[in-house]
Amino acid sequence: MLYSTILAGGSGTRLWPLSRASEPKFLHPLTGTDRTLLQATVDRLDGLSEPGHVYVVTGTAHAAAIARQLPQVPAENILVEPSPRDSCAAISLASAIIALRDPDAVMAAFSADHLIGDEPRFAAVIMQAVAAAQQDYLTTIGIRPARPDVRFGYLKTGDQLTGEALRVAEFKEKPSLEVATGYVQSGQYLWNAGIFVFRVQAFLAELERCKPALSAGITAIAAAWDTPQRDSVLAETWTGLEKISVDYGVFEGAAAAGKVATVPADMPWSDVGDFHSLGEALPTDEHGNLLIGDQDKVITRDVKDAVVVSTANRVVAMIGLQDVVVVDTPDALLVCARDRAQEVKQVVDDLRACGEGGCI
Amino acid sequence: MLYSTILAGGSGTRLWPLSRASEPKFLHPLTGTDRTLLQATVDRLDGLSEPGHVYVVTGTAHAAAIARQLPQVPAENILVEPSPRDSCAAISLASAIIALRDPDAVMAAFSADHLIGDEPRFAAVIMQAVAAAQQDYLTTIGIRPARPDVRFGYLKTGDQLTGEALRVAEFKEKPSLEVATGYVQSGQYLWNAGIFVFRVQAFLAELERCKPALSAGITAIAAAWDTPQRDSVLAETWTGLEKISVDYGVFEGAAAAGKVATVPADMPWSDVGDFHSLGEALPTDEHGNLLIGDQDKVITRDVKDAVVVSTANRVVAMIGLQDVVVVDTPDALLVCARDRAQEVKQVVDDLRACGEGGCI
Repeated sequence: MLYSTILAGGSGTRLWPLSRASEPKFLHPLTGTDRTLLQATVDRLDGLSEPGHVYVVTGTAHAAAIARQLPQVPAENILVEPSPRDSCAAISLASAIIALRDPDAVMAAFSADHLIGDEPRFAAVIMQAVAAAQQDYLTTIGIRPARPDVRFGYLKTGDQLTGEALRVAEFKEKPSLEVATGYVQSGQYLWNAGIFVFRVQAFLAELERCKPALSAGITAIAAAWDTPQRDSVLAETWTGLEKISVDYGVFEGAAAAGKVATVPADMPWSDVGDFHSLGEALPTDEHGNLLIGDQDKVITRDVKDAVVVSTANRVVAMIGLQDVVVVDTPDALLVCARDRAQEVKQVVDDLRACGEGGCI
Repeated sequence: MLYSTILAGGSGTRLWPLSRASEPKFLHPLTGTDRTLLQATVDRLDGLSEPGHVYVVTGTAHAAAIARQLPQVPAENILVEPSPRDSCAAISLASAIIALRDPDAVMAAFSADHLIGDEPRFAAVIMQAVAAAQQDYLTTIGIRPARPDVRFGYLKTGDQLTGEALRVAEFKEKPSLEVATGYVQSGQYLWNAGIFVFRVQAFLAELERCKPALSAGITAIAAAWDTPQRDSVLAETWTGLEKISVDYGVFEGAAAAGKVATVPADMPWSDVGDFHSLGEALPTDEHGNLLIGDQDKVITRDVKDAVVVSTANRVVAMIGLQDVVVVDTPDALLVCARDRAQEVKQVVDDLRACGEGGCI
């Protein structure tokens, strides 16, 4: 039975003003149903991981909200970090704790805020990754790129391994548009979806090889986790842990040693990076509009391909618009051209700078 | 000394959600300053009418708010109609009451919700109209048309009279675009600005000739106005008065008899008919944007030629937009293409029909 760890961190400033530091995107129902992104991430594991094998790594701010949203996940599986130390520390912590509880465990790591369509295909892809993981490959899911997107890292694929799995020759950072276009044309590259599957012992061995100090710290913390010493060991050790992504910290080095596999997947996948992506990822109405929230108070007149999020319980009237994003919340309103949706991040920076940080 | 009567009626549904039945547009500061349209209308009379010669005709709903906004206008000059009976009854009532107080009075009638630029020119135009009125012409102000606009009535001009005044040959209703284009090309037509200047005796004589029943009712009401019988005479008479505009009720008939003059004016004038007109009428910033309300909470990033009204004390962030109207109020939001601003009226109708009338 697969263990699954959900990384519930980050605030998603490109989804402001819906997503806030106090209420990040994974806590919001951005799924086309009343389930939040976090809940949908757990729902998707049905048949792959039983609830007792689901773990969440999060920070102090959202632990309580997560516990409420996921009543089926045991409280001791909700691992609360004292402060954010990036994904390498988070995945390593979950791996080390699970390894103590079940040394032969195979674990998958997922983001709490991704949308994935075609759940049967998702389950099949994960099972392919589990098969590769059982041969001690650190395995990633690679998404066949729908377009040359510069917002993602890429995986350069190598030779065929077991089943559908390919070797990962190299991890590539977010490329320029020109480079990304070349990647897509070559057929050799996949989007790095940030989904990882491995035997926890194989991962921890590679962590020890690539990042011995981080490995030692995590080992000490995991050993103290279920003891009265947890808080004191965390206090001594946590903030000294290197802050690095798991891609850079472990997978790049492992790939150079030929130890990383990927399962190419053509299922619909979105990291819900901004409101434009959200409109691409979810089903729209007959006018191409995506309406989320208080839909019955939204009145549109000749509006096409819009993304409208309404959570302020107000009437929202729109007339004669196309490719626009409107996000109406109790204390902030965003009106944005869809092709400029990524610039929301800059607006949040501007707000912070000009003393309007209360609404971010 | 000129008497001035301000007609403060109508709700301005094309300025929803700012303008409401409960708070029509003339009560709002849509003037580029903190003065409301109503206050700016009175301010503009400085040097033309002393405050004791300023009258306001309004309904029961707004009498108190008007009294507060215009502390300089004597309470007895605020004439409150029991119910709306259109402009002919309103102007006739003011004329008849003023005629009893000052039989030789010359009176001007203005709308409470128009914007007029170049106040010295405005004053000069009104004085030209007073000169024509003193020769017993019922005089209107005609605006030289800036474009073939189908939202206005037109005045067909005739022969030259005294000073700058021309005879009005005919009143023309709101035309088709084709007809309006011909009007503008001919140079013979002016927009009917809804500003009238006349000797009250001349107006009342023409009222008696054109609308004898309405004249009789108004005469009875005016006679009772400053007596204990005001309420009982109003109760008997008011709702029986014909509901007709002063243009149709008096001026068309008077024009046919050669008794109407107009003073052509090229001053900036707007009836603030919709948010697009408002953006045309008021000064904009260097990007062509008009920001009204809580401007310090509006953040724009590459936004041009927008009209933004913010009264909800919320952050409003806009990115990558042009020619858009955003009106943010505590219980309703409008986002609209500027060239569709007139359709706001239909949205208000839709809201009424679908049970969301609470915010209109």
